[in-house]
Amino acid sequence: MSSTPIGIGLLGYGTVGSAVDRLLTARQADVERVVGAPVEVRRALVRNVNAPRSVEPRPGLLTDDFSAIRDDPSIAVVAEVMGGVSPTREWMLELFAAGKSVVTANKQLLARHGAELFAAAEANGVQLRFEASVCAAIPVVKVLRESMIASEVNAVLGIVNGTTNFMLTKMADGADYATVLAEAQRLGYAEADPTEDVTGGDAAAKVAILASIAFHTQVTIDDVPHEGIDTLDSVDVAFANDLGYSVKLIGQARRVEAGVVVGVAPTLVPHAHPLSGVNGSFNAVMLRGDAIREVTLVGPGAGGDETASAVIGDLMGVLGTSGTGFPRTAGVFRDLPLVPADDVESALYIRLDVKDEPGVLARIAAILADEAVSIDSVVQRASEGRAQLVIVTHTAPEGAARRAISSIEATGVCASRPVTLRVLAAS
Amino acid sequence: MSSTPIGIGLLGYGTVGSAVDRLLTARQADVERVVGAPVEVRRALVRNVNAPRSVEPRPGLLTDDFSAIRDDPSIAVVAEVMGGVSPTREWMLELFAAGKSVVTANKQLLARHGAELFAAAEANGVQLRFEASVCAAIPVVKVLRESMIASEVNAVLGIVNGTTNFMLTKMADGADYATVLAEAQRLGYAEADPTEDVTGGDAAAKVAILASIAFHTQVTIDDVPHEGIDTLDSVDVAFANDLGYSVKLIGQARRVEAGVVVGVAPTLVPHAHPLSGVNGSFNAVMLRGDAIREVTLVGPGAGGDETASAVIGDLMGVLGTSGTGFPRTAGVFRDLPLVPADDVESALYIRLDVKDEPGVLARIAAILADEAVSIDSVVQRASEGRAQLVIVTHTAPEGAARRAISSIEATGVCASRPVTLRVLAAS
Repeated sequence: MSSTPIGIGLLGYGTVGSAVDRLLTARQADVERVVGAPVEVRRALVRNVNAPRSVEPRPGLLTDDFSAIRDDPSIAVVAEVMGGVSPTREWMLELFAAGKSVVTANKQLLARHGAELFAAAEANGVQLRFEASVCAAIPVVKVLRESMIASEVNAVLGIVNGTTNFMLTKMADGADYATVLAEAQRLGYAEADPTEDVTGGDAAAKVAILASIAFHTQVTIDDVPHEGIDTLDSVDVAFANDLGYSVKLIGQARRVEAGVVVGVAPTLVPHAHPLSGVNGSFNAVMLRGDAIREVTLVGPGAGGDETASAVIGDLMGVLGTSGTGFPRTAGVFRDLPLVPADDVESALYIRLDVKDEPGVLARIAAILADEAVSIDSVVQRASEGRAQLVIVTHTAPEGAARRAISSIEATGVCASRPVTLRVLAAS
Repeated sequence: MSSTPIGIGLLGYGTVGSAVDRLLTARQADVERVVGAPVEVRRALVRNVNAPRSVEPRPGLLTDDFSAIRDDPSIAVVAEVMGGVSPTREWMLELFAAGKSVVTANKQLLARHGAELFAAAEANGVQLRFEASVCAAIPVVKVLRESMIASEVNAVLGIVNGTTNFMLTKMADGADYATVLAEAQRLGYAEADPTEDVTGGDAAAKVAILASIAFHTQVTIDDVPHEGIDTLDSVDVAFANDLGYSVKLIGQARRVEAGVVVGVAPTLVPHAHPLSGVNGSFNAVMLRGDAIREVTLVGPGAGGDETASAVIGDLMGVLGTSGTGFPRTAGVFRDLPLVPADDVESALYIRLDVKDEPGVLARIAAILADEAVSIDSVVQRASEGRAQLVIVTHTAPEGAARRAISSIEATGVCASRPVTLRVLAAS
């Protein structure tokens, strides 16, 4: 064993960065046994060295000068935990050029500029690891990239945003969207500006990353159609429950004959489905394939220490496998087409606010039949001359279902816009 | 990339061995991209080369001569999928001495002779990987050894035997032990001789392996007290259900102040607990720690392709990280004591078959109180002058609870031996 400490640099010293420092220090002896040499956080980049901090860092740790990390030959690997797309992207490229491997928790950066960054890391013979960018302490990136390296994974689906899962769990108990958002903000689960979480943007970035590594093809956040829970009506959560479903914000990536299907949307999940019981701020990701059948990973998808734990796992991985190029940084060697939205096959929940008069259901059923969208179940609740008609369809191309819904609207029987949600198969 | 194929040897060509060969061949192109060179199964050791096989292997693959694998310089790594303790152990040592890394699915061998084998691998500068030895396609070994390498994991608990979980799921529906065993055998979930599964021996081997890697201390199968489901009465499954619990065969390893607690036993799991809903032949393992909170992995714990998938993940890991010594093969660098059985703290379910007469409950409660075992809940069902008295205790040292139960028996109020099961806390 060498006794020269291996230096680690941090870009950012907020909740995650300071937790990486604290956990690495607390487990110093174990880390040295694992890596074969002592490991030490040498410098941490912050905007303001003199800003007040809850724990005072040791003298000389903080710097506001990026080059002090980039040009320090004793720093072998850098953990990027500052977030943002710029200047993070430019700095990461400079670190690769300086021969330093990088571990990142930055899902937005990877989901937008992953191809460029992975290529730059490979060109410089260094590693880019990113466990913490998806679901914090749940090691889904490592499992996909290493354990299932030669297993054909044909679907990745899950609950990859804890904020919205917390909110949906509360909505299942009857609360409405505005109330649960306020509660999530009060408890610190949701940011003051919750847009990224509630619109599905955060989940879409994670789906882009998971799809890329599962199917070895480049998927960016712009490829991932996403709907959030910000337009979800608690009426539909209640109807879903009556029909035997929970509503969850499901991100999915599926390998089908025509290519890759990706998306994020509030989705009806049968009560018997393993994802239905994942409540509160927890995340869960299911991996499906012929050889592995179905492996599900459940755990906290956010949190300072949880994210730091993933960053540290990656740091150890980089230090442990340095020079082997394992796992291949990008692992992208296919160019699979995205299936056009109209061709994606889904079962749908359709709620129509219609006139409660004879023949309405018959006309609607006929329109669906014309588009070859077959009906699995129908529930109708009437009150004061109107009816809420809830239809769950069998799997059909979404384009056909959309055409049918437009035709139904065109008949003038609907008092408001139809509500459409996807439905997950029981298994 | 090199074009000289890397040779793989197989010890065994049964369900798992032939699946490794088939899956590696089917994914040849991807495997080459991952490893950087083509990979090829070169020789497979079998007892009888001419035995009839469902798929005829290619000419020259099979051999009944171990030295043909050990001495083949083109074979870099060997997958041991033949099982058994001898001659497997001796052969593995010979492979290490010949400079070959080994990937194994052999839980019994590792749980008995792990220390010797890991030391031999390290001494020879080769790797010993063993993902397939615990829960097949569920990558719990990799997650513990690599993702949580610097996270303090303080508890590992789970359902690590699919045969008994299938049987317990059926018993929860009201069937008795003998009936479900016959069904499990008919469906191929249980062997003709089911001893290893139903007595908890199989689970104990897995707990020994998991405890060793989670806590970095050597735990062997002889250290793991185990009770099986072979003495479980369906009456207790029904009582448990009425009280809000499922009965599961839980294997656990806990790090406590006094050392390590390990064990396997049929255990009452609260319905709200994530392990309660893991049904059929699926396995699930929960990892708990301060930084990671709680990460649960769920999936198929057995099966030919599922096990082969884990073997292949390890083969790729060995080929990808060769020469780095990562992860440290043994990872055992502590020597933690096992907590004596009497000092282990558990909540207990106690069923007493007692005379239905005044004062019995009072006497029993007094005896428990004398040993400082406090009662969480009591249910009594009377019929024909006798009563089934079911007591769930709060957490107490098991020695105290055992002394109390002996004292209760000594009073002569019990018509049959008291039944004791452990109870898992809700979280």
